[in-house]
Amino acid sequence: MIGCGTVGSGVLDLLQRREEDLTRLLGRPIRVVRIVVRNPSKPRHHLASLISSGVEISGEPRRVTRDPGVELVVELAGGRDEPKTWILDAIEHGRDVVTANKATLAFHGAELFAQARAKRRCIYYEASVAAAIPIIEMLSNGLVANQMTSLSAILNGTCNYILTRMEFANLDYSAALAEAQAKGFAEADPTLDVSGGDSAHKLALLAGIVTRSHIPVESIYTEGLERITREDMEFVRQFNYSIKMLAIAKRNDQGSWELRVHPTLIPRSEILAQVRDEFNAVYMKGDAVGPMLIYGKGAGGLPTASSVVADIVRAAKGERGTPNAHMGVTPALVPIERIELRNYIRMTVLDVPGVLGRITSFFGMRHISISSIHQPEARVNQPVPVVLLTHKTSEHVVAEALRDLETARLLTRAPTRIRIEE
Amino acid sequence: MIGCGTVGSGVLDLLQRREEDLTRLLGRPIRVVRIVVRNPSKPRHHLASLISSGVEISGEPRRVTRDPGVELVVELAGGRDEPKTWILDAIEHGRDVVTANKATLAFHGAELFAQARAKRRCIYYEASVAAAIPIIEMLSNGLVANQMTSLSAILNGTCNYILTRMEFANLDYSAALAEAQAKGFAEADPTLDVSGGDSAHKLALLAGIVTRSHIPVESIYTEGLERITREDMEFVRQFNYSIKMLAIAKRNDQGSWELRVHPTLIPRSEILAQVRDEFNAVYMKGDAVGPMLIYGKGAGGLPTASSVVADIVRAAKGERGTPNAHMGVTPALVPIERIELRNYIRMTVLDVPGVLGRITSFFGMRHISISSIHQPEARVNQPVPVVLLTHKTSEHVVAEALRDLETARLLTRAPTRIRIEE
Repeated sequence: MIGCGTVGSGVLDLLQRREEDLTRLLGRPIRVVRIVVRNPSKPRHHLASLISSGVEISGEPRRVTRDPGVELVVELAGGRDEPKTWILDAIEHGRDVVTANKATLAFHGAELFAQARAKRRCIYYEASVAAAIPIIEMLSNGLVANQMTSLSAILNGTCNYILTRMEFANLDYSAALAEAQAKGFAEADPTLDVSGGDSAHKLALLAGIVTRSHIPVESIYTEGLERITREDMEFVRQFNYSIKMLAIAKRNDQGSWELRVHPTLIPRSEILAQVRDEFNAVYMKGDAVGPMLIYGKGAGGLPTASSVVADIVRAAKGERGTPNAHMGVTPALVPIERIELRNYIRMTVLDVPGVLGRITSFFGMRHISISSIHQPEARVNQPVPVVLLTHKTSEHVVAEALRDLETARLLTRAPTRIRIEE
Repeated sequence: MIGCGTVGSGVLDLLQRREEDLTRLLGRPIRVVRIVVRNPSKPRHHLASLISSGVEISGEPRRVTRDPGVELVVELAGGRDEPKTWILDAIEHGRDVVTANKATLAFHGAELFAQARAKRRCIYYEASVAAAIPIIEMLSNGLVANQMTSLSAILNGTCNYILTRMEFANLDYSAALAEAQAKGFAEADPTLDVSGGDSAHKLALLAGIVTRSHIPVESIYTEGLERITREDMEFVRQFNYSIKMLAIAKRNDQGSWELRVHPTLIPRSEILAQVRDEFNAVYMKGDAVGPMLIYGKGAGGLPTASSVVADIVRAAKGERGTPNAHMGVTPALVPIERIELRNYIRMTVLDVPGVLGRITSFFGMRHISISSIHQPEARVNQPVPVVLLTHKTSEHVVAEALRDLETARLLTRAPTRIRIEE
């Protein structure tokens, strides 16, 4: 095992709790041989019994990746580029690898999976997406008979926690973020999460399985949730929508895929809108199964460790059913500009006579069809929000209109646009 | 393949749609060799291309179970006792078996799995529970590192369709059943579904995996939904509950299990309450993962075929990770009388002065604590419903009270009791 933080400790805990069961299931025990940590001289009381039973604590990854007594390398160190060299080294030396490292796989997956194929080794990575939820197994095995046609997922617990608190506790973004940080659901530097970057890493992995190919992270359109305000939440609630940070993969009739991560309005009656707090969920459709949803904890030591141990068991059974075999070319992707979506647009205008007419004709001229418009009462000459929902409109048309709005002197502040999915 | 109805045809359809993908995945094609049907001389146009490519249509199951050219027997015939002999015969002759037959497995599973173990063969049965939902794989593999502590599942699409229509279209039981029959969601004789029997078969299989043992169907307490009325739905809605036909397995701190199938009040805010129409869902808790939910189509040709094909692929890959290995003794079960639950009790009384007092003291004397009571206004001396919700009460106390009520001359009709889960 390389890395022994929250997840690693969870794995050791579960291996111990389930020792008898797993030994009976596999016909042999799972034995931890070595643990590599950054600072091996730091006292680790929770490892005391392992150390006294002969487990070596080392600072040198090669003690694990190259030891002939090691059958399986479990990489739980985190980071992006360094783990790549360990995984490659392990494969090079004939070991299978279990990893929970979405960033490494999303950025170096093409190289790692190709190397695993060449050496007939296997990389197991269930824990890298949505922690406890066995979504990778499900897409790779359970739904193998399906052409998946779409996938809409809540893959980042930090974002979902923030949005839940904004929606139900009326907090603004920064208060919700501060609360998430205090509760351990957000990092001190939350950028990777709130920017959608982490969701994009995970979507790249899931879309890779679904399209049986390699998806570069850079090909996923990604937008963060930092600009959503309490005012947006209030409007959205009024219209019976929720805002969720969704990672979306959709296949069109030509077999091309749109891949995107952004805050999204979804009807409150949708089952995804019921996914609250730090939970994750994946809603998907296949040509045989129709719609399906899976929901569970998307972070945390034990939930993640549950999937790591499942992978260890799979490896011990010699099951090689991962989609690695497919990882090859990138499928045709639909650029974001070519997608048509409904939109929520919130603008702030000076409440002067005729302003609503000027707004609607601004959008009318650009062939953006408005499905509804809302303006609360306000005092004349005071800034007032105007919210409109559009019918399906090409992204490039909306983008152009939003750019034009900035120079049109209609608004007192930059507008907020959030995409809608039904 | 034995049996070629809706599911069998779906399997042939999917094998054809995915031929290229599956061949690449497995490194060899999946080939249908023989199909056994009850009436082989009946013209089957949809099989024409298979027949012309050399697939034999036969009326004799042994043509499949004993043919040396057959590697895998796929049993999709339905029925309970007859398929047992085919499955045994297939195992006897060294073949693995894929089946969607919950009744056969629930009643003859102990014998079938023991025989499979003895002959080192494997029975794959993903499609036997909740059709499209890969719940068996999930419990056997994805959550293998967990001690599961509870499972509450909607496993019968017929029941869920009927309850959904009663809840949202205000239909009474018989109208909802008639609609379900017209739409093909219920059989002409719906007894097995509405009595809870079918759910109990499926719960026996799931609880068998979770407890790693054999669960006899007879050990599951089962109650049907036939007695639920439109009036119950109205009350329940008023109290912010939904009624769902739940299959429940719960582990207590001593490691004993309660297993039961019955109509259940659950808060409308629960995610299971969002599961509508013919959909199935399993909500479960494990010591590592916490709560988890999976949701999808629980019936239908293609959804079921999706799981059958997943099993065929698993068998072709030689993955033997089913829980068969565990099937042995029955775990300690908690008899229904020893369980404590909250209850909804609807009674009909003559609206005479003092009747509410007599009702409440009737329950008070029996140490049944009432958490709320409701009686709509009515004309004096007319029958009026009285509904009460109890705090947690022992089943045997409630059962005795319900018996006593019948002789106490307080009610004009037999009471309705529905259990509550939060």
